[in-house]
Formats: sequence, structure tokens, C-alpha cells
Amino acid sequence: MVRADPDTTKRPPVSMRFEQTISLDAMGGDRGTETIVAGAAISLERHPELTFLLHGDADLLTRAVKAHAALKERSEIVHSESVVAMDAKPSQAMRKGKGTSMWSAIESVQKNLAGVVVSGGNTGALMAISKLQLRPLGEIDRPAIAAIWPTVDGESIVLDVGANIGASSRQLCDYALMGAAMARALYSVERPSVGLLNVGSEDVKGSDDVREAHAVLGGTRGLPIDYQGFVEGDQIGQGHVDVVVVEGFAGNIALKTAEGTARQIASYIKSAMTRTLTARIGAFLAQGGFRVLHQKMDPRRINGGTFLGLNGLVVKSHGGTDALGFASAIDLGYEMSRSGLLKRIADDVASFHGTLSEVVAAG
Amino acid sequence: MVRADPDTTKRPPVSMRFEQTISLDAMGGDRGTETIVAGAAISLERHPELTFLLHGDADLLTRAVKAHAALKERSEIVHSESVVAMDAKPSQAMRKGKGTSMWSAIESVQKNLAGVVVSGGNTGALMAISKLQLRPLGEIDRPAIAAIWPTVDGESIVLDVGANIGASSRQLCDYALMGAAMARALYSVERPSVGLLNVGSEDVKGSDDVREAHAVLGGTRGLPIDYQGFVEGDQIGQGHVDVVVVEGFAGNIALKTAEGTARQIASYIKSAMTRTLTARIGAFLAQGGFRVLHQKMDPRRINGGTFLGLNGLVVKSHGGTDALGFASAIDLGYEMSRSGLLKRIADDVASFHGTLSEVVAAG
Repeated sequence: MVRADPDTTKRPPVSMRFEQTISLDAMGGDRGTETIVAGAAISLERHPELTFLLHGDADLLTRAVKAHAALKERSEIVHSESVVAMDAKPSQAMRKGKGTSMWSAIESVQKNLAGVVVSGGNTGALMAISKLQLRPLGEIDRPAIAAIWPTVDGESIVLDVGANIGASSRQLCDYALMGAAMARALYSVERPSVGLLNVGSEDVKGSDDVREAHAVLGGTRGLPIDYQGFVEGDQIGQGHVDVVVVEGFAGNIALKTAEGTARQIASYIKSAMTRTLTARIGAFLAQGGFRVLHQKMDPRRINGGTFLGLNGLVVKSHGGTDALGFASAIDLGYEMSRSGLLKRIADDVASFHGTLSEVVAAG
Repeated sequence: MVRADPDTTKRPPVSMRFEQTISLDAMGGDRGTETIVAGAAISLERHPELTFLLHGDADLLTRAVKAHAALKERSEIVHSESVVAMDAKPSQAMRKGKGTSMWSAIESVQKNLAGVVVSGGNTGALMAISKLQLRPLGEIDRPAIAAIWPTVDGESIVLDVGANIGASSRQLCDYALMGAAMARALYSVERPSVGLLNVGSEDVKGSDDVREAHAVLGGTRGLPIDYQGFVEGDQIGQGHVDVVVVEGFAGNIALKTAEGTARQIASYIKSAMTRTLTARIGAFLAQGGFRVLHQKMDPRRINGGTFLGLNGLVVKSHGGTDALGFASAIDLGYEMSRSGLLKRIADDVASFHGTLSEVVAAG
């Protein structure tokens, strides 16, 4: 996946390797450019081999990188005139997107100048412009958003968490293939375990599409996945499978509900531990434990939705996160870029999409 | 709602008032009859005015109530020959249901001998037999299951959590009416706030059915609800609205995901607090705080899915819960029975279902 000599007129000050270059939409986020640039600096400390293309207002960016000498050395500023509004509709963003930092950041991936684009901007706009510029991969008709889900013993991949409302059985099968390719790239498992999210574990439960996808995934030989059947909502956090497949409406609601529940319990803990003086003293002594707990529950630690099914890697960061959160999203993007995820997905889709389609059609 | 003289040949030893009588499926649960009977005894301690119809194997029940003198005084055993299997399909259960404890327990509500039936048995079978015996209320075509959801400052009602897969806009509007009636009964709010669960807060997001229900609920005057628009998954636990409306697939996944996340965090807490000796000492001192936290997070405290939209009240308890959990489900059923929930729903559906249908048809 090392591109020898990418065709570019905007050569960065250091030699950039395609898969070690992050294209950053430095205007897309609720806390401003400085936060995003600070995130890039943190990520660079962790991975000194990285280089950055920083897309946004050149003056603003020039000022922002001054505070980060190492980053300044290893990044190039790409000026863009405007910004995609956080409330812009996807159709608007597509029509008026040219000239925005988001458009320009995605273009760097399209032109093979960077291995991945990271943006904290408007999700709908990011997906629409990504589809337009990068185009869906092979026969995938609807790219999905994959989330990393912290589990009791590690993490799992859940998709789709909101790119599309509803999914046909064929699309659910594509999600399974793409999610498994991502699990192979991130977790180095040869045949990742995959489950279909459903409302019960019996074969008769769920919508027609879910039951059909279940029959296809369970009945097709030679797939590069270890299909485990249905999983229920409470099994996601138990790390029951490496990849959880679900249509985007329910997937988005599951993800947001888990985030909300974690926040709710954090507020319970806080009020329980400040109730009495003894509780406060105990909590003080146990602060090492609470620190571990806090880290475990820190939403910034795992940040970034990955768009799967495009000819290019796109990571959506939470817009409201801080520098640490942006660094996590960049790290995630880099991990996928250097592991050659895109090629894995392309290969798997090329090898198995046809087989699955035949089975779906025959069923 | 006091029935003067219910027509029954099986008169209990004490005078039973309809709305103070619980019909209990004493065979439906994973931990056996003794656990369920112990749950009834706990509930009776809290509400000494209650009486019980205990449905199940007479020998087993006679032995089980021996340990609970007060309960023995205030309950009648109704013998049934068989039990609905936990893995029976709904269609099977309907055909072969007669003679089971579940069937008999529902029948007591159908005959106005009890204000509510509580069962920890197979959910699909319970819904199927309830529909068959109690019949859908008025023009409701699909009864829903409502869950009580603990929030940071109290609780909310979420429906549907799995009675049906998918819901039309008309059904979503019915859920809103029924959930609001339940909120009025339980929380004594005149116009409960209602939100539609969606993947974003903008009008353009979500499925056609969700957007249509949004337009209808927002555009219809005089409804007995305070419609608040869309809510997202992370707002449920914040107690943003009294009633959250969602189709059953996503609703079930949200509920299970929240339960799973709570369990996951509980295991994080446990391991964080036993890491070091200091953490253990601190946790010991803070045990009062942890006790409060434990209570807050205890799934037994809020147990019971309510079937709404039938001519009779049905509460589904978690099958795997213990006596305390069964007591919570019984308490919930009793609260709804004595508040006259059924009549409220019937009145609201009679008054507003027609209006909503007209708006949906016109839209």
C-alpha cells in the first residue's frame, strides 16, 4: 500500500508516505481549529512517523501550529475558503461543498495524498461528499458507519451506526464482510466472529431482512468470517463477537443509548461518592481505582466512526470532543491506513459479494 | 373501577376487590414457583390490602405458600395442569395454551377476577394468549410493551420494547397516546411530555414512518400530550421526556443495550475497586455510597414490561429475576390497576385515535 510517488503539486516539506499521512479537516468540530490541531500534535507524539495535511483557513492554521513545533515540521497547510455548516443538509453540502475544508480534506484522499481523512464535521455532509468524491467500493451500494464499542475484555466493531435507515439482507451481508475486514485489520484475527443484532436468539425472531441475512450468513460456505448467529443488545458490551451487524436506525440508537447510560451511571457514582464525609474519604483513598474506572469509561479514549465501503478511508470524530478525542480518531484512522484495510475490504467484497448475492437471490 | 360482585364460582377465602387482586402465573419463571411466591409475599408486606390468585400446580403451590402465613391467608390457589415452555412459539402456545398456568392466569383478568396478571413466562406466548383472550382495545391493532426506564432524576416510560417489529406512523401515534396514559396513571402528570426516538433531531432524519408520526403529533391540536419532537438514544436516561416512543426492534435493542452497559460498568467498578489494597480500603469506607449506587443500578428495582392496548392489564416480569424482582413487577401491576390505567387508555384511544387517523390519512 506504499504509493511510490503520488502525483501532487503541493509537496509537503517532509517526505510523506501515503499511508502515514493524515488529511485533517481542521475546521470541522465544535471547539475550533486549535483543539483539532492540538489533537494532531498529541497523535504525532505517539506516532512520530506521521505527517499531516491540515485543511482550513491558512491564517488560522498558521497561528494554531505555532504552538506545536514538531507538528509544524511535519504538516502542510492547505488553504480552503469556507466551512460546511454543522446544520447543512447533505444535498446542500454536495452542491456547495467545493472550497470547504471538508471537501478539500476528502480530495487529498481521493488523490492518494493521504491514507485517511479525519473530520469532526457534519456527519451527513461528510458521508455525502465522501460518496461523491471517493465513490462506493465495488458493488457496495450503501457505505456504512462502523463504531468501535468498548467491551468488558477489549473492544468490538458495530455497524451500521447511522449511515442508512434500514438495510436489506444483502446490505446486512455486506456489512458483515466489511466489518470483518476491519476486525482483521485492527485485531489481527484471521476469521473474526460476527453476530447479527436481533431482538431474540431464536430463528423465528426479527424482521424478514434480518432472518434472511441470518440464513445466508449461516448457510454460505467459505466466508472469511466465523458467523455466530443472533446477538442481543446486552451481549454487545460483553464482547460476545468481534463484529456486530445491525441496520443503521437501531444501530445508532444502540450506540447513543450506551453512551447515555454510561454518562448516567457516572453521575450516579459522583453523587453516591459525595453523599457523606466517610464516602468522600473512601472515594479519596480509592482514587486510583476511580482513575482506572474513569479511563475505562472515557468516551474520548475510543472516538471515531469509520465509513466503510468507499474507495478511501474516512473517519468521523465526535464534533464536540477535545484534543485527546481528536487524537484517538486520528490514531484509529492511522491504524486502519497502515494495516491496508481498504485493500482487504476490496478483496473480500470482490471475492464474496457475488457469492452472497447468488445465495440471496436463490433464497 | 371497583367491580361490585364479580361472577365467579371460585370465591377466595377473603373478600377480593377486583383492582386489588393480582393474578399470578406462579409457574412462569426460570427460578421456580417458590421464588415467585416469595415475591408475592414481599409485595403483600408492602401492600397488605392485596389478594392473590396463584395459578399453577396445586401441590407445588400449597407447599410453597406454607412458608408465608400472611400470603396464605390472602391468596387462592387455582390449579392448572401444565406450563407454557420457555421456548414455545407463540402460535404453539395459542393452540396448546389451554390448561396452562399462563392461560388460566390471563383468564382471571378476562373474567374480571383480578385487576392485572403478572407472569415471568415466555414473552411471545404471553402476548399471543393475552391478545386471544383479552382482545385488542378499541381500534388498536398492535398492542405494545412499555418499559419503565430509570433516569437521572426519576423514571420514564419507553415503548414499544419488542412486541412488534416495525411500526407505521399510525401505530407510533397510538403508542404515544397509550404511553402518555400510563405516565398520567403512574406519575400524576396531566399532559405528559412525549418524544419520538430518532437518529437525529432534525426534521429530515429518520424513516418515513417516524417523520410522518412527528408531523402528526406536532400538528394535531388538543392531544392530551406535550409533544417534544425527536429525542436521541442518549437522552432517554437523561429523563428528557416522560414517554419515549419507538418501534419495537430498535426499542428492544435500546433497552437491552442499556441493561448490558449497566452490567458492564458494574464489572468495571468491581475490578477497579479491588485492584490495590488502598482501593479496597477506600471502597470499604465508601460502602454507604456504593450501597446507594448498587440500589440505583439494581435491575430488580424496576422490573416489568407492561402490555398496553389490550382489554386487560398484563405485566411481564423478567423470567430470571429473584423474589425482589417479582415483587417489583407485582407492585408495578398493582399501581396501574388501582390507578384505573385501562379506563384512561380506553378513553384516550376513543377520543383521539379517530382524529389521529384522519390526520394520518390526510397527510
